[in-house]
Amino acid sequence: MSTPQQFHVHEVSSSYWRVTFDNGPVNVLDPDTIDQLGALIERIEKDPDLTVVVFRSDKAGYFMAHWDALADKARVAAMAPGPTGLHPYLDNFVRLSRVPVATVSQIRGRTRGAGSEFVLATDIRFASEKAILGQPEVGLGAVPGGGPMARLGRLVGRGRALEILLGGDDVPADLAAEYGYVNRVIPDAEIEAFTDAFAHRIAAFDKVAVAGIKKLVDIATLPEDAEFAPGLQAFFATAGRPENQPFYQLLFENGFQQPDGIEADLGTAIGRLRQSTERRHLT
Amino acid sequence: MSTPQQFHVHEVSSSYWRVTFDNGPVNVLDPDTIDQLGALIERIEKDPDLTVVVFRSDKAGYFMAHWDALADKARVAAMAPGPTGLHPYLDNFVRLSRVPVATVSQIRGRTRGAGSEFVLATDIRFASEKAILGQPEVGLGAVPGGGPMARLGRLVGRGRALEILLGGDDVPADLAAEYGYVNRVIPDAEIEAFTDAFAHRIAAFDKVAVAGIKKLVDIATLPEDAEFAPGLQAFFATAGRPENQPFYQLLFENGFQQPDGIEADLGTAIGRLRQSTERRHLT
Amino acid sequence: MSTPQQFHVHEVSSSYWRVTFDNGPVNVLDPDTIDQLGALIERIEKDPDLTVVVFRSDKAGYFMAHWDALADKARVAAMAPGPTGLHPYLDNFVRLSRVPVATVSQIRGRTRGAGSEFVLATDIRFASEKAILGQPEVGLGAVPGGGPMARLGRLVGRGRALEILLGGDDVPADLAAEYGYVNRVIPDAEIEAFTDAFAHRIAAFDKVAVAGIKKLVDIATLPEDAEFAPGLQAFFATAGRPENQPFYQLLFENGFQQPDGIEADLGTAIGRLRQSTERRHLT
Repeated sequence: MSTPQQFHVHEVSSSYWRVTFDNGPVNVLDPDTIDQLGALIERIEKDPDLTVVVFRSDKAGYFMAHWDALADKARVAAMAPGPTGLHPYLDNFVRLSRVPVATVSQIRGRTRGAGSEFVLATDIRFASEKAILGQPEVGLGAVPGGGPMARLGRLVGRGRALEILLGGDDVPADLAAEYGYVNRVIPDAEIEAFTDAFAHRIAAFDKVAVAGIKKLVDIATLPEDAEFAPGLQAFFATAGRPENQPFYQLLFENGFQQPDGIEADLGTAIGRLRQSTERRHLT
Repeated sequence: MSTPQQFHVHEVSSSYWRVTFDNGPVNVLDPDTIDQLGALIERIEKDPDLTVVVFRSDKAGYFMAHWDALADKARVAAMAPGPTGLHPYLDNFVRLSRVPVATVSQIRGRTRGAGSEFVLATDIRFASEKAILGQPEVGLGAVPGGGPMARLGRLVGRGRALEILLGGDDVPADLAAEYGYVNRVIPDAEIEAFTDAFAHRIAAFDKVAVAGIKKLVDIATLPEDAEFAPGLQAFFATAGRPENQPFYQLLFENGFQQPDGIEADLGTAIGRLRQSTERRHLT
Repeated sequence: MSTPQQFHVHEVSSSYWRVTFDNGPVNVLDPDTIDQLGALIERIEKDPDLTVVVFRSDKAGYFMAHWDALADKARVAAMAPGPTGLHPYLDNFVRLSRVPVATVSQIRGRTRGAGSEFVLATDIRFASEKAILGQPEVGLGAVPGGGPMARLGRLVGRGRALEILLGGDDVPADLAAEYGYVNRVIPDAEIEAFTDAFAHRIAAFDKVAVAGIKKLVDIATLPEDAEFAPGLQAFFATAGRPENQPFYQLLFENGFQQPDGIEADLGTAIGRLRQSTERRHLT
């Protein structure tokens, strides 16, 4: 049995690809996502005509929920480094940021943790009012591994980055736009047409100009690759600790990774459950 | 007679401290503030369980007015360097930014000059609509000493940083949020509860995660310590010049450092008085 | 016959200059602009009393349209490097950013391409609701040459910088303020008085403070001069390619560089014309 494809690529034209992500009821990321994203990035890197790629989801309420807490940790730990020398989870995001094409995340639902890290690795983030972003890792006893400490501070400023990362709460679309976490909010009824028109514009432009501009913006805005490595090391050192397991158990009892449980307001729910757990310990 | 304590620490729990600042009718900062803040930071640095500290004021209209213009300059000049090798005024702010806990400024009144420098050294700034921020030093013939040239440019971008620092005018809460000078505006009637709930969230999280995240955001967002030193040197070289004294005289005649005088709209008042003084010189 | 002066300097006082730009029906920039701006910057650099300069336009609808597509390319290519060692087009912008006075762009109309690069090289950008900014070069097959890849990423963050530079579309005043491309929007009926009052404030301040503050903000916010050079090299390598010429022809047929043609909505028009051209090629 072959592994199902999670990234569905629609080649709208030779210069414009539309990629729809699909993995389970809430679009989690897992080890297969790492492998398949790596392959997709290599295709994007090598294509001579491509100027723009749009990432989207057809799953109601979810762009990419977050990393699959049930994923095989040993498989992830055993993965060989990518071309940058980084673990492929990070290698993907670092290379995705540098592809010589414009990449756009069209976010109409939740995208937290690894999903937030994915959209932060793309160039441009358009969100509808249904989008919710966040980095809830702090509430799970972990340091986020995919680079948000390096990226968010540069994108939204230190104060807002620390609120997002240390608060770990849900960031609704309006606040995300106010903070610069996303570019702007486009009404949900219009965002497909808006993003498509934006992509068709860029698809009509000369790849030499698109790639030449991006290369210089990269110099001005991207952290050195080496800055990302300690984040992933900190994630591995913190996320898998045995003391985190009882809380994961509690999350699964409350519908974690299911569309109708606590995933809906996960950031808020984690805070509430953490505090109720703490109170039980104290009493 | 012992020196009155300016920072009142309420240990809400082992992981959450609430610190209320209190110094005179408008909460000025003075040499005692430097000493006491240094001691408080050392306590915060060493505490094994602390994850979040909220700074606040109970003084109507004032968070921290600014540096006390009547303070003993010789005492300040004679202070021994702190652990970073910087003068303790700067050493405090540099170390405050790096404490392994989340620090939150809850700003319900004016905080200018040294007060603005203090809140910029904390991680997260929540402001009510009653907050007014600013760096009025330029209008007093001085370069600000506590780091806002290094911090504001990175936080709000070059254009807005230069408007704030070269214009020297009052920045009301709404504009401060639009510019990113504060994280966001929370209605004054709600901000105590809002900040308290935010702090209780973080207090329920694992210190390993909080400290680990902050350390990496620090790498991405904080200037090198050495970048701060020229600012304080420039402050010492400009602030105490004899030619500034007549204007300070004029400010005190107009209620400087009193709650009901020009402190209310100090940034605006400085511009007005500067221009009227200039006109008198010309006529 | 002498070359007409494009920068009209009104010395409001010894510390405040108001400079009105005027060059043709839509205020294009051309080789004379480079020479005259260089001379003006030298005057500003050397003036002992100046603390603030306001740049403005009296041309309805236009601050500075963009680079003159009909300008003599050989003359530009032959220009000797400026004091920084950079080509004078870039040398001007780099030195303008570092003059020891506050510089303010009062933008009441369109300012795109080289015009956007000019305002980005000034310190503070106040825009009325009639302002439109943009970097349409990508749609003309070129990498912008005057530094926006270096400046915009630091000013508005990577995501919004890439949207502006790779989308190449018009950025109306409100969106420009939301993104931080301009400081803020001031109603068109008030912006002259607002900017004038802001300038009079700074004109009443001590030059030692103004210059001392700006020097330290420069350290925190300006790219190294060397970061700008590859952008201009990329511009020269891409902008003059023969394959770009038919599209310029099409633009001139549609009123390019005329106040009532496609200049009004140039960013949008370029996208539309590019896509219609592409469709013709395909059919």
